[in-house]
Amino acid sequence: METRRGVIETPVFMPVGTQGTVKAVSPLELHDLGAQIILGNTYHLHVRPGEKVISRQGGLHKFMGWQRPILTDSGGFQVFSLARLRKVTEEGVHFQNHLDGTPTLISPERSMEIQRDLGSDIVMAFDECPPHPCSYEEASRSLELTLRWAARSKAWWEREAKEDRPLVFGIVQGSSYAALRERSVSGLVEIGFDGYAIGGVSVGEPESEMMRAVESAEAFLPLDCARYAMGLGTPPQMIEMIARGIDMFDCVLPTRIARNGTAFTRHCCLSLKNAAFAEDPGPIEEGCECYSCQNFSRSYLRHLIKAEEILGLRLVTLHNLHFYLKLLRTARGSILEGRFSEFRREFVSNYRPNERTSIAS
Amino acid sequence: METRRGVIETPVFMPVGTQGTVKAVSPLELHDLGAQIILGNTYHLHVRPGEKVISRQGGLHKFMGWQRPILTDSGGFQVFSLARLRKVTEEGVHFQNHLDGTPTLISPERSMEIQRDLGSDIVMAFDECPPHPCSYEEASRSLELTLRWAARSKAWWEREAKEDRPLVFGIVQGSSYAALRERSVSGLVEIGFDGYAIGGVSVGEPESEMMRAVESAEAFLPLDCARYAMGLGTPPQMIEMIARGIDMFDCVLPTRIARNGTAFTRHCCLSLKNAAFAEDPGPIEEGCECYSCQNFSRSYLRHLIKAEEILGLRLVTLHNLHFYLKLLRTARGSILEGRFSEFRREFVSNYRPNERTSIAS
Repeated sequence: METRRGVIETPVFMPVGTQGTVKAVSPLELHDLGAQIILGNTYHLHVRPGEKVISRQGGLHKFMGWQRPILTDSGGFQVFSLARLRKVTEEGVHFQNHLDGTPTLISPERSMEIQRDLGSDIVMAFDECPPHPCSYEEASRSLELTLRWAARSKAWWEREAKEDRPLVFGIVQGSSYAALRERSVSGLVEIGFDGYAIGGVSVGEPESEMMRAVESAEAFLPLDCARYAMGLGTPPQMIEMIARGIDMFDCVLPTRIARNGTAFTRHCCLSLKNAAFAEDPGPIEEGCECYSCQNFSRSYLRHLIKAEEILGLRLVTLHNLHFYLKLLRTARGSILEGRFSEFRREFVSNYRPNERTSIAS
Repeated sequence: METRRGVIETPVFMPVGTQGTVKAVSPLELHDLGAQIILGNTYHLHVRPGEKVISRQGGLHKFMGWQRPILTDSGGFQVFSLARLRKVTEEGVHFQNHLDGTPTLISPERSMEIQRDLGSDIVMAFDECPPHPCSYEEASRSLELTLRWAARSKAWWEREAKEDRPLVFGIVQGSSYAALRERSVSGLVEIGFDGYAIGGVSVGEPESEMMRAVESAEAFLPLDCARYAMGLGTPPQMIEMIARGIDMFDCVLPTRIARNGTAFTRHCCLSLKNAAFAEDPGPIEEGCECYSCQNFSRSYLRHLIKAEEILGLRLVTLHNLHFYLKLLRTARGSILEGRFSEFRREFVSNYRPNERTSIAS
């Protein structure tokens, strides 16, 4: 995928940098981990420090010291999960932010403006995110509104930015209803976007329902555009999504559970707080090339985590991001070599999911 | 100063790694900052994870991934500031640790055993740390006990470690009484140590009293042994101490106030939370070579600190440690070039201490 800040090789995992930093990680470390692109959250950055502050500092890339591409979300998901006193109108969403309650309107046009001020390379059309579960009627009404907002989002860019435009992605909604997912895709494709994201997944629904939602949208997406499954997922979920044609992923899971002392391996998740690791001299995962595994034992990491030392969560975060980024690089390599099915079968069958891999909302 | 893990150039600042990590910093970063030696806390490591765990993992250096020298304190200071239900006898100190209340005895011999198990390169004799203020009689009784403990500490090493012995330092006590400081030094010198630390300073007394305590001890210390002022200090305090013949310093100040968003500069401390920095595009300190100053603005750092992002305290910690380590390197260079007095006068007169530089105990 070509962006104005260089080519991104897909399938790709995008570490999440909610507040202008991937939690606990420096840009130099992200670079060394091989992250190709990171995600910034429009809602959070709008609320603090404000897109105008970032713009006057030269944009989000300069502000946070990250030279590679940045994708920003539309703000919709956070408006619908964090903000208070929400009121949805045709114009947009009125709300009070979760930090200091400032009354705010985010409309499709405002969302595009904020993402422009941040200097994003891939921007998302503004969308409504209905809750789960959601009735057919409600999901239908909501996706039609999202389609009208998507058209306004695209129109804003055509009007406001003739040159050096970022890629603009539409977001497929439709809850768990296959007919609505299809309707959402066809409406978005009619407007025409540079890529398509599947939203409203990983919002508390069972995994089988999530897979069906992705499948029912994916079947109707253009073949020559990037497809992005928003907010996903566990390692086997990503591999299964790649098998279903998805190219892009973002997820807080590897960084969030790291801060709780949980590390990914190719077989399962390890809770490093476990007493079994108190005197374990081995690394998190034998053979792993990350800084943590090359230099520190499970025994030391457990000590750091029990002692609530920042270095502990730093080292587990580095490992987990390395794991995710390497998993996607390996998947890409296996596709190029024509042995993805084999890789998928082997990886998924060797992986034992447990309760620590579920995504806390 | 020669240690079994190499030569240390003095005067030297030793970053504090209380629980087997200098807070928020990786060993690689410490190495790149030019730290020559770090400090580990005997009491904390004894309580968690336990010196036997660390010993079975190959010692503290291997455990925490740090190849250069480590100095461990005696545990005395923490026993007297953190532990509960303390009872001092001739044998040692009985207490319950601050974490889970386990009843424990630390005697001079136990302290040496623990420091041996940790694999320390510079060990401290076990000492009693009287509170401030302290009567002459109490300070006198206490320092005599500390002298008997010092003799037992040294005897333990002569008995238990014939070869590959670490450097063993005695600790001068005597509160704010010049006569007692002198008595403490002469008693310690009679026993004979590889170096001498001045303890019982920076325990809440006024700065002038602290300077006098150091001066009254320093005058009687052997010229060919390292002198270490424990738990000091602010930047001008260290420079003043160097002028009084002190070679070694350790202090939590640069790392602790960094986690509160306060950064050192050659003129003063900056509280980066201050609204004045919200849109300041400059680095913490113009011309500073540290990773933070080379890559990030005050505006970004303020945002990270306000948003309570780990990267914020990481970056300020890196800057503050760089500042301390470079200050001591500069002092060393000025001594070698015969212009220390000039450097001292200029640095101290340009530095404006404020309330943010006081050491929280």
